[in-house]
Amino acid sequence: MLNPEHTKALRGFVGGDNFFTDPAHLSTYAYDATRERHLPEGVIFPKNEQEISQILAYCNQHQIIVVPRGAGSGFTGGALGVSGGLILSVEKHLDKILEIDTKNLIARVQPGVINKHFQNEVEKLGLFYPPDPASQDQSTLGGNVSENAGGMRAAKYGITKDYVMALRAVLPNGDIIRAGKKTIKDVAGFNVAGILIASEGCLAVISEITLKLLAKPKLRQSAMGVFQSIQEAMEAVYKTMASGVTPVAMEFLDNLSIRAVEERFHKGLPIEAGAILITQVDGSVPEQIEWQLNAIEGHFKANGCVDFQTAHNAIEEENLWFSRRNASQSISVYGKKKLNEDVTVPRASLPALLEEVGRISKAYNLPIPCFGHTGDGNVHVNIMLENPETQLEQGQRAMEEIFKCAIALEGTLSGEHGIGLSKAKFMPLAFSPEEMGLFRAIKKAFDPNNILNPFKMGL
Amino acid sequence: MLNPEHTKALRGFVGGDNFFTDPAHLSTYAYDATRERHLPEGVIFPKNEQEISQILAYCNQHQIIVVPRGAGSGFTGGALGVSGGLILSVEKHLDKILEIDTKNLIARVQPGVINKHFQNEVEKLGLFYPPDPASQDQSTLGGNVSENAGGMRAAKYGITKDYVMALRAVLPNGDIIRAGKKTIKDVAGFNVAGILIASEGCLAVISEITLKLLAKPKLRQSAMGVFQSIQEAMEAVYKTMASGVTPVAMEFLDNLSIRAVEERFHKGLPIEAGAILITQVDGSVPEQIEWQLNAIEGHFKANGCVDFQTAHNAIEEENLWFSRRNASQSISVYGKKKLNEDVTVPRASLPALLEEVGRISKAYNLPIPCFGHTGDGNVHVNIMLENPETQLEQGQRAMEEIFKCAIALEGTLSGEHGIGLSKAKFMPLAFSPEEMGLFRAIKKAFDPNNILNPFKMGL
Repeated sequence: MLNPEHTKALRGFVGGDNFFTDPAHLSTYAYDATRERHLPEGVIFPKNEQEISQILAYCNQHQIIVVPRGAGSGFTGGALGVSGGLILSVEKHLDKILEIDTKNLIARVQPGVINKHFQNEVEKLGLFYPPDPASQDQSTLGGNVSENAGGMRAAKYGITKDYVMALRAVLPNGDIIRAGKKTIKDVAGFNVAGILIASEGCLAVISEITLKLLAKPKLRQSAMGVFQSIQEAMEAVYKTMASGVTPVAMEFLDNLSIRAVEERFHKGLPIEAGAILITQVDGSVPEQIEWQLNAIEGHFKANGCVDFQTAHNAIEEENLWFSRRNASQSISVYGKKKLNEDVTVPRASLPALLEEVGRISKAYNLPIPCFGHTGDGNVHVNIMLENPETQLEQGQRAMEEIFKCAIALEGTLSGEHGIGLSKAKFMPLAFSPEEMGLFRAIKKAFDPNNILNPFKMGL
Repeated sequence: MLNPEHTKALRGFVGGDNFFTDPAHLSTYAYDATRERHLPEGVIFPKNEQEISQILAYCNQHQIIVVPRGAGSGFTGGALGVSGGLILSVEKHLDKILEIDTKNLIARVQPGVINKHFQNEVEKLGLFYPPDPASQDQSTLGGNVSENAGGMRAAKYGITKDYVMALRAVLPNGDIIRAGKKTIKDVAGFNVAGILIASEGCLAVISEITLKLLAKPKLRQSAMGVFQSIQEAMEAVYKTMASGVTPVAMEFLDNLSIRAVEERFHKGLPIEAGAILITQVDGSVPEQIEWQLNAIEGHFKANGCVDFQTAHNAIEEENLWFSRRNASQSISVYGKKKLNEDVTVPRASLPALLEEVGRISKAYNLPIPCFGHTGDGNVHVNIMLENPETQLEQGQRAMEEIFKCAIALEGTLSGEHGIGLSKAKFMPLAFSPEEMGLFRAIKKAFDPNNILNPFKMGL
């Protein structure tokens, strides 16, 4: 519990304008995208790394829980304080792009920079930062690193971890450390940056991020394939990817998702289709684009694609992507509450995963629209509840079956969203007692007093 | 010390044919590519993961040091037992390719598989495993993972860590764990695979590796540029890479390296050149190859390239790469012993690094031929000693100056070779006491009794 002495000390570190215990602030920082509510005892906005260090050293000494927070756009409760404690927000001050090094294609940023803002700034210089989580307009790069955010472009360009070259971070005891280098190759010392990525704010507070950039591809083009059955579409996905074409994105909508978008927006979508695949390729010369689209069309048609369209200008491109961009909001036509998870399997197991989801949907009599990033095997599974009061337990049981199915197919509990609170209870499905023991030992090595974002990940 | 009871127990785990304490075996396993000599007390060849587990659990209980070993081709003593102990070799039995999954572009291998053998096997199926350390004919994939091996193709395709999807490993207490998944995206639990990579066998014994594969690029072509000064060549490197062309490789030889190869092989190399750059591009269509080579030629010529040649067939390709492939052995013309290190800097700092190496060479009156992977800022610096007895200390002082320079340029002590024993004393140049303290805490979390490859990395 924060006592008056603590609040005085914490206020002393950052100034009265940057530390709050009033109900309005506490209430605002009690939420994230899970819509769970966990009231913290204080909210603090450090102005720099030195202040983060002071705060953590003090909280460590006094056993005060600290929960680091970016934009609070996470889906698994990673930025929520479970039992009070202090929310340490990087929003207010730590939002600067410190350097865009066009000679080395590297940028240094503070953790509170919004992903999309960063993308825009580097694109002005002809550069490219690929990771594009759906939350990109809100989510921070610090949050992206902490959750190892993915996105649509992962099929070709990988995920956040593939772009983190180095981090600065503050350990729970207040020690400031650097991890990694501004070099492509660096094998000196343990890969501390590697383990901080995706650590959900449980090991250290990230204070600065060095990111790899690419040159912006000169050309890009999108295409869409309509399939009669979802099985055929899923076969087309993995066969295309295995053939040596690597599209930037390979996204899908199932029949329920297509119908939902059509119901809301009347775009003339193929509502009888089992699934649509939407893809984008990029490159430096037109022939490279053409080669890729021809190859994709060939693989699609060999696997049951009944209609293949390419976009020839920006408007057609926008139209082609419309259904995918609006899928998430549209599926609310099926119910007031959704249980949405992001299971991921090896691509060739997509047909089996989607078949199983169909079976579970029937067995539990719940609509389960699916869409997502099939190019990397990542499916957003949405169990829709019309009456959350009566259907919640049933929905949760259905979700557990889906998790078990994903694990059985050598997949993972989470491709993008992390574990946080929401999936904590499912960790034993995926990890052995020995593996959980190792996670706890790692947590303890960084945070012996367990003050930093405790109770997350089932630890 | 291994007493008779220990040798009996260890022999019991693996059988008499797989455990040795005779002088011939101990002597053979006392070396690696550093040519330092550290006699172990025993050499053991486990047949499977279960035996690794039994060995480690026993050694942990009895405080017997275990040093995991692949091919022993490392340059920093990572596979040497510093003070006796047991060499655990994956060579004899754990050398199987378990699966090449052409649907998901994934392979599962045991740690003792030789890199080049694996490359050849996947290429037979039209697939591609890019990491190509210079040791590829000898080094094992387990060793590659433990050192995070790089190679020439890193400029475009990255390094070993970019291909490791999952690991199975045995902890020092004998616990068998899995880390990572066969999925592109996986954010459940801490990134244990991430910290095992490059951990130099200090945290766990890797028992199985799941690797990402690519489809083999259809076309490739190489080119060479001759530069009057090394400064111009280094400017050309980073300007080319920053422009958006991403060659597979962008290698260099300095004047001393060119002269050495010419002296030994009489190939008509440009011995007056300050440096040559050798590059390779790949792609799916001829126009993509052409675009890349044109762009590279343009950037080279804008930065002082006096001669640009492209290879038009396999023989020309081979000739073009001859000097690079034979640089390492040829520089022995400058001295009996070489101190070779692999410092790495951000690419735009290459001109400054090479200038400083030139200054140090003059100041210490020692030839320092350089070659290497400039596409990712990785330079193999070779301090040549004609009289190792009298010049060793001088050479080591020169190397320390080069390390300090690399660190000052935001580079690293090691881009590829690791720290092991050879660079252990330089760790404080690169890491703060707090960072070293964190390394020790991580080591302790995995290996509380410090039995696994102790005394390495300066820990």
